[in-house]
Amino acid sequence: MKVVIVGAGNVATHLAKALLAANVQIAQVWSYHYANAKLLADQVHATAIENLAVLDKTADICLISVKDDAIAEIAQQLIDFKGVIAHTSGSVNIDVLSGSANYGVFYPLQTFSKDKELSFSTVPLCIEANNDITLQLLKKLANQLSNRVVEIDSEKRKILHLAAVFACNFTNHFYALAEEVLTAHQLEFDILRPLITETAAKVQQSLPLTVQTGPAIRNDEQTLKKHEELLLQQPQLLEIYKIVSESIKKTR
Amino acid sequence: MKVVIVGAGNVATHLAKALLAANVQIAQVWSYHYANAKLLADQVHATAIENLAVLDKTADICLISVKDDAIAEIAQQLIDFKGVIAHTSGSVNIDVLSGSANYGVFYPLQTFSKDKELSFSTVPLCIEANNDITLQLLKKLANQLSNRVVEIDSEKRKILHLAAVFACNFTNHFYALAEEVLTAHQLEFDILRPLITETAAKVQQSLPLTVQTGPAIRNDEQTLKKHEELLLQQPQLLEIYKIVSESIKKTR
Repeated sequence: MKVVIVGAGNVATHLAKALLAANVQIAQVWSYHYANAKLLADQVHATAIENLAVLDKTADICLISVKDDAIAEIAQQLIDFKGVIAHTSGSVNIDVLSGSANYGVFYPLQTFSKDKELSFSTVPLCIEANNDITLQLLKKLANQLSNRVVEIDSEKRKILHLAAVFACNFTNHFYALAEEVLTAHQLEFDILRPLITETAAKVQQSLPLTVQTGPAIRNDEQTLKKHEELLLQQPQLLEIYKIVSESIKKTR
Repeated sequence: MKVVIVGAGNVATHLAKALLAANVQIAQVWSYHYANAKLLADQVHATAIENLAVLDKTADICLISVKDDAIAEIAQQLIDFKGVIAHTSGSVNIDVLSGSANYGVFYPLQTFSKDKELSFSTVPLCIEANNDITLQLLKKLANQLSNRVVEIDSEKRKILHLAAVFACNFTNHFYALAEEVLTAHQLEFDILRPLITETAAKVQQSLPLTVQTGPAIRNDEQTLKKHEELLLQQPQLLEIYKIVSESIKKTR
């Protein structure tokens, strides 16, 4: 199988490295900024290209991994691409690619950082396609990268993406708020790291509702009040503390 | 060193097992419910006792690991205990034990579940004492359990505990909210587990503010709006989505 990659951001980079590790040939990498394309291409034995017009038309799959609102415009430039075109976004409908004959979605449900390696084998790959041959091809590629390939339509993928915002983006923000609490009192974030690891580890075997701890779920009004007093100088944190505690109480 | 343990809940259980693993002798375990004391005592080669009056007065340390609001009452019953008395709570002042001669705090900053094993060696143990000899004794015990022993006073310990609510209890609630989003659309929580693991892993090397991702930090109004539309049938989730997204935007 021969793949070309459009984009050189976090997702494109991790995908490309996983493809290389799986011995899938990456012919070319394109990016808005040629320097970025070159940087990634060099790492995965591919050729960086400056212009989408020279995209290798004999490639089997073109993965579009650019910002959500740029996908449509890129897709228009690739209408004469003969292989399968797939984007990697969680929230963009498959229809954005409907100008092509064979198209789909190849969405890795994971958070990627440029500097942090991760094992792709456990990343859920959410696949969708406009016809069965395309679906089978995308699945074949996905199975080479991950043990967890899921067929999912655009509507459900959007729900997954929304749930991921709660489970990842919002969660990370609460890590940041915890840091804000600590730094206001000259304490360091580092001491929370084992707790954060264990909190995530607990829900690997259990459902989160069944392992909820803390003053709100115990209805421990005394501790809730003490915490609110400690936050009097940080009104934004206080507001969030109250709202989330109320939300937890409702799950009792 | 000889230790007695008052309490048989999650913290007491994990502490007792860690002490056993470190070859610290546990003489006795007491609990409000004798059956719980027996259950734990049997696991750590200790004797379960029904009445605090028969607590082994020759023990070096008595660890009180009961509900926050029960510590004062227990402490009163242990005034004639000759060794060091220490409670394990994050939010209770050391002064609650001031009826005793030698007292302190032995607070493991971690979330414990009865059914989930964890390695105690990375758990930060926060130590406080009313005099230096007591401090040294608690430190000695702590060093046998963990590589991370921190001296910290009651005021800062309360801040740590508050930060832990943000980083652990609130975070777990957002896992639960993510599950709520998914189940409303017949999707399963399991697909989010690798993402949750990686989100926690990312902040082990980085500070959370530097690795924040998602539509809010990008100021991606289009996606924010789409997500809000998806939550119209779940007004509580919608409210939280808006508030947390606003809070994230303020960190830009």
